[in-house]
Amino acid sequence: MLRRRDGEITSASDSVAVEEPLEIRVNGQAVAVTMRTPGSGEDTELALGFLHGEGITTHNQVARVRECRAPEGDGGIAEVDLRGELDPAGGWQRQFYATSSCGICGKASIDAVRAAADPVQDGPIIDSRALDALPEALRENQRVFERTGGLHAAGLFNSTGELVVLREDVGRHNAVDKVIGRALMRDLVPLDDQILLVSGRASFEIVQKAVLAGIPILAAVSAPSSLAVRLAEEANMTLIGFLRPGGFNIYAGGERIQPE
Amino acid sequence: MLRRRDGEITSASDSVAVEEPLEIRVNGQAVAVTMRTPGSGEDTELALGFLHGEGITTHNQVARVRECRAPEGDGGIAEVDLRGELDPAGGWQRQFYATSSCGICGKASIDAVRAAADPVQDGPIIDSRALDALPEALRENQRVFERTGGLHAAGLFNSTGELVVLREDVGRHNAVDKVIGRALMRDLVPLDDQILLVSGRASFEIVQKAVLAGIPILAAVSAPSSLAVRLAEEANMTLIGFLRPGGFNIYAGGERIQPE
Repeated sequence: MLRRRDGEITSASDSVAVEEPLEIRVNGQAVAVTMRTPGSGEDTELALGFLHGEGITTHNQVARVRECRAPEGDGGIAEVDLRGELDPAGGWQRQFYATSSCGICGKASIDAVRAAADPVQDGPIIDSRALDALPEALRENQRVFERTGGLHAAGLFNSTGELVVLREDVGRHNAVDKVIGRALMRDLVPLDDQILLVSGRASFEIVQKAVLAGIPILAAVSAPSSLAVRLAEEANMTLIGFLRPGGFNIYAGGERIQPE
Repeated sequence: MLRRRDGEITSASDSVAVEEPLEIRVNGQAVAVTMRTPGSGEDTELALGFLHGEGITTHNQVARVRECRAPEGDGGIAEVDLRGELDPAGGWQRQFYATSSCGICGKASIDAVRAAADPVQDGPIIDSRALDALPEALRENQRVFERTGGLHAAGLFNSTGELVVLREDVGRHNAVDKVIGRALMRDLVPLDDQILLVSGRASFEIVQKAVLAGIPILAAVSAPSSLAVRLAEEANMTLIGFLRPGGFNIYAGGERIQPE
């Protein structure tokens, strides 16, 4: 790598966030490939969280999950075996196709979430100052960000602001999937009294994943989108945006936030 | 919306970036749904750029394209009619499925790009100081960012640093697709002497879209990923990261960057 500073171009070394493909298989069938940051055990988490967040599986359907390196080339494979069969004829293939990754069939998918997921529980009341402290706790616990600047983070906190699990990834959806996958493995879902903090924006898809995991409070360091706000309102979720030193915005569910 | 500042929670108003679904149809068949920021004419651009960036269509295959509001609910539909037929039996369906949106079949897809796209032309030599000026030019021209904080931007510049086209979106891939779609409509592709600047990270997929459009120089305000660097090297592309006041990093193709 070359670096230009103060008009000089010099040779330099730099850490770059690792991005590699992960193929997710269900009952032997490849259902998705996502670009993710590898980590031991994290492919399993990502696969479980992804399938849960797409409404494809519930955790008690999962009989076995394992991860391995792809036999050739870079990347990994996560294999999820279910107790029963997937039913492509039942619209699963179509639904998955439409909702993979960044692409979501908005109207249809909003309806699907409404149908598939109950609104989140009323859950805890959170002290404003506990919220204030979350971004710094997230950053302190990020191992890689300071070096590469290329990783998104998602953190799950309990209602007193203690970090439960933190995951990072080149993809912001992946970081959330890993966190929720970890929680699924620890049998913590629905996460009725937890707060999910994401280092970037709150999009429709992030809210959708949180709703399906039963999370009552979603906070983002950056902005929410219009559809994120609407889905949060409809799902009884508290949505916080621009959570930064000195304040935050409450876009939905303000009744869970206690003023000082 | 409620806003907390200095310990006080008060009612406030706020602009939120609009996020809505767009369904992309090819010859009457729905091939993708993406969450995007709407804008007159931009659905057409997005559809053309997306299909080009996935290697599904080349521009001279497109007979007609139109955009409309979805008949019910929110969102839009972009319909692209080709001069010929798509050939699902030829692996297109599978390929598209694997590469939709954030999810890319890494190894297979890297090979596919290598096969489908020639390396970019040697193209222009760029003055370091011309590069320095691009982020500010991008920001000055962003209409919405300052208000909502929620939009990614992509800008196409000529080799002297003049802005050719700028697009914004809640999705960073969409912003790039719109820019390239606009260039396709103006018959500017391959963009042999242009620079693409993105407001966020440079991932594999962004590099892939740029390679397919023939863009010799890709610059990102934030970090590149490992696979982005590898693909740029292999495609003869210059990849700049952390393009910020005072400097930038050159991850590939440094021969196109002229020191002061």
